[in-house]
Amino acid sequence: MSQNEMDQLRQQMDDVNLEILKLINQRAQIVQQIGDIKNKQSMYRFDPVRERAMLDHITNKNTGPFENATIEHIFKEIFKASLELQEDDHSKALLV
Amino acid sequence: MSQNEMDQLRQQMDDVNLEILKLINQRAQIVQQIGDIKNKQSMYRFDPVRERAMLDHITNKNTGPFENATIEHIFKEIFKASLELQEDDHSKALLV
Repeated sequence: MSQNEMDQLRQQMDDVNLEILKLINQRAQIVQQIGDIKNKQSMYRFDPVRERAMLDHITNKNTGPFENATIEHIFKEIFKASLELQEDDHSKALLV
Repeated sequence: MSQNEMDQLRQQMDDVNLEILKLINQRAQIVQQIGDIKNKQSMYRFDPVRERAMLDHITNKNTGPFENATIEHIFKEIFKASLELQEDDHSKALLV
């Protein structure tokens, strides 16, 4: 019975993993679109004020079990990856 | 018009951020439940084979724009945080 319960929880986890994957990539697409606009306006892509505001907004809504510090850490990794993705896109554009 | 477009994209990003937050915490709750079962069965919480299988399953479904390596990196951070959360729970339980 515990094995069955474990299997169910693992299935739930697999489903949640794929939902997170979908959302992270969806977020990356939005970042790319914002990057395109910023490019046209010759704006800097990295905006620490906006990043801080996003983190505050996210942790304000955090109900756990993760601590705010952990949530911030995970999101900073996502932000960093998004910025790197834009830099890749930009380098590729320059090579064309 | 570009500013309006930018505002809309930022609103979308805020929404996606909160959805990711919800799912990451939902995932943490599942990890805690699995940890409880493992505790009762005196099983190790860290299972590298299962972790590798989850990462393969996730990257198999990855359609980008993030590269598989980036997706793996972000998920490994989530896995690590989840494991730390369980260790905290376990330490607290030992203190009771």
